[in-house]
Amino acid sequence: SGLVLVKNPHLDLMEEDVLYHLDLGTKTHNLPEMFGDIKFVCVGGSPKRMRAFAQFMRRELGLAGPGEDGPDTCGGSDRYAMYRAGPVLCISHGMGIPSISIMLHELIKLLHHAKCRDVTIIRIGTSGGLGIEAGSVVITDTAVDSSFQPRFEQVVLGDVVVRSTELDKGLAEELLACSRDLPDFPTLIGHTMCTYDFYEGQGRLDGALCSFSSEKKLEYLRRAYDAGVRNIEMESTAFAALCGLCGLKGESCGSHPS
Amino acid sequence: SGLVLVKNPHLDLMEEDVLYHLDLGTKTHNLPEMFGDIKFVCVGGSPKRMRAFAQFMRRELGLAGPGEDGPDTCGGSDRYAMYRAGPVLCISHGMGIPSISIMLHELIKLLHHAKCRDVTIIRIGTSGGLGIEAGSVVITDTAVDSSFQPRFEQVVLGDVVVRSTELDKGLAEELLACSRDLPDFPTLIGHTMCTYDFYEGQGRLDGALCSFSSEKKLEYLRRAYDAGVRNIEMESTAFAALCGLCGLKGESCGSHPS
Repeated sequence: SGLVLVKNPHLDLMEEDVLYHLDLGTKTHNLPEMFGDIKFVCVGGSPKRMRAFAQFMRRELGLAGPGEDGPDTCGGSDRYAMYRAGPVLCISHGMGIPSISIMLHELIKLLHHAKCRDVTIIRIGTSGGLGIEAGSVVITDTAVDSSFQPRFEQVVLGDVVVRSTELDKGLAEELLACSRDLPDFPTLIGHTMCTYDFYEGQGRLDGALCSFSSEKKLEYLRRAYDAGVRNIEMESTAFAALCGLCGLKGESCGSHPS
Repeated sequence: SGLVLVKNPHLDLMEEDVLYHLDLGTKTHNLPEMFGDIKFVCVGGSPKRMRAFAQFMRRELGLAGPGEDGPDTCGGSDRYAMYRAGPVLCISHGMGIPSISIMLHELIKLLHHAKCRDVTIIRIGTSGGLGIEAGSVVITDTAVDSSFQPRFEQVVLGDVVVRSTELDKGLAEELLACSRDLPDFPTLIGHTMCTYDFYEGQGRLDGALCSFSSEKKLEYLRRAYDAGVRNIEMESTAFAALCGLCGLKGESCGSHPS
């Protein structure tokens, strides 16, 4: 049917669903009217960048008339910023798996309550590239954890549940095809490694703590490269797992700063 | 000496240290001049609340003259907001362990570069209370993970390193003593459970996914209570581990909304 799936039998029994961190709710807002026509959701870490992206999309879609260049704020607390550009919803997710998970739970319920159909969700974030040209964009085929395994370990009531982190391969190919029209950005498909930590977790030598040598760091990153990893960030495994379970066609693109 | 410890031999060899997510750096800013007199750091998830808290502190400390009620912005990108109120630095950390970890790594280096001495750091966040009165404040003695163990598992180059999550017991007692002057807030000392997820990880029935019954949820929370847990949030184990390793006197207080 193309509808977004929520897999929670309790939801139907609730009188009201408050999407607390988005500052929206089923009783306080008419979600089908506000969001029923959404076809794309673009998410990224930084609120300012998502604002700029929404502004860019409105111009690209011819939605910004003279004097109304600003994006259309449509929800979001100070935890997340949320803008609309026609059928495109743009939301920031903060940094790390816990932060993006809260947003995705509430976004998925939002799309469900709004009865949206055939929604595509794309993460457009920065990431650290691995053995690739500066300025490259990596389209994720599979998100892997810090042991290079295609899995997301979710703790449910104290027990670990392992989830798949495969993303939509058709969408990845479509995005790669689009990239061919943009000669400025070398684009490739590869694995994306997702870590819980930016400094020690990604082998950085400039955190407040660092117990390893430059050689050990390079050895680890070389092993990651050999396992197919082309970029490193902090959200993709949870993103892939949640999209997969809820029937959202999802893709993650990481841009390696130049 | 009371100085903040960084445990990273590489730092001394670096020509410049850019505290990227705070938008500060050793070459672009005079950190000792800007921050050398800081004695307290208060951190919490929400940027708006930390702004309000800085405003409150400036009034309490008699630093806000007429017409200058606003807080003193002193750094911070759109990832984190950062304000000063005299010797008190107020910073938001976003939601979850990865987000607070990035902030703490850069904050600890900031305090180190600024040559701050005898700094006390207090997390003042919201949390879900467990078997306690609404409106209570829980002062954490030990942060525990979702298996109720006093440990923080940090992945370093793909390997798990286990760290202690004890907080400063003297500071906890001091804060409890202060609370006796505030009859409006029931305050207690207890364990704080830290999870990586707000919905499935904390036994909530209203996420996009929920595979457990109300009974299973209550059973898990009862086990947590029996293990000494009095509140649940998403940052305390990483906070305790990093403060402990870097010689920062730290305490985490969670307020259970009424």
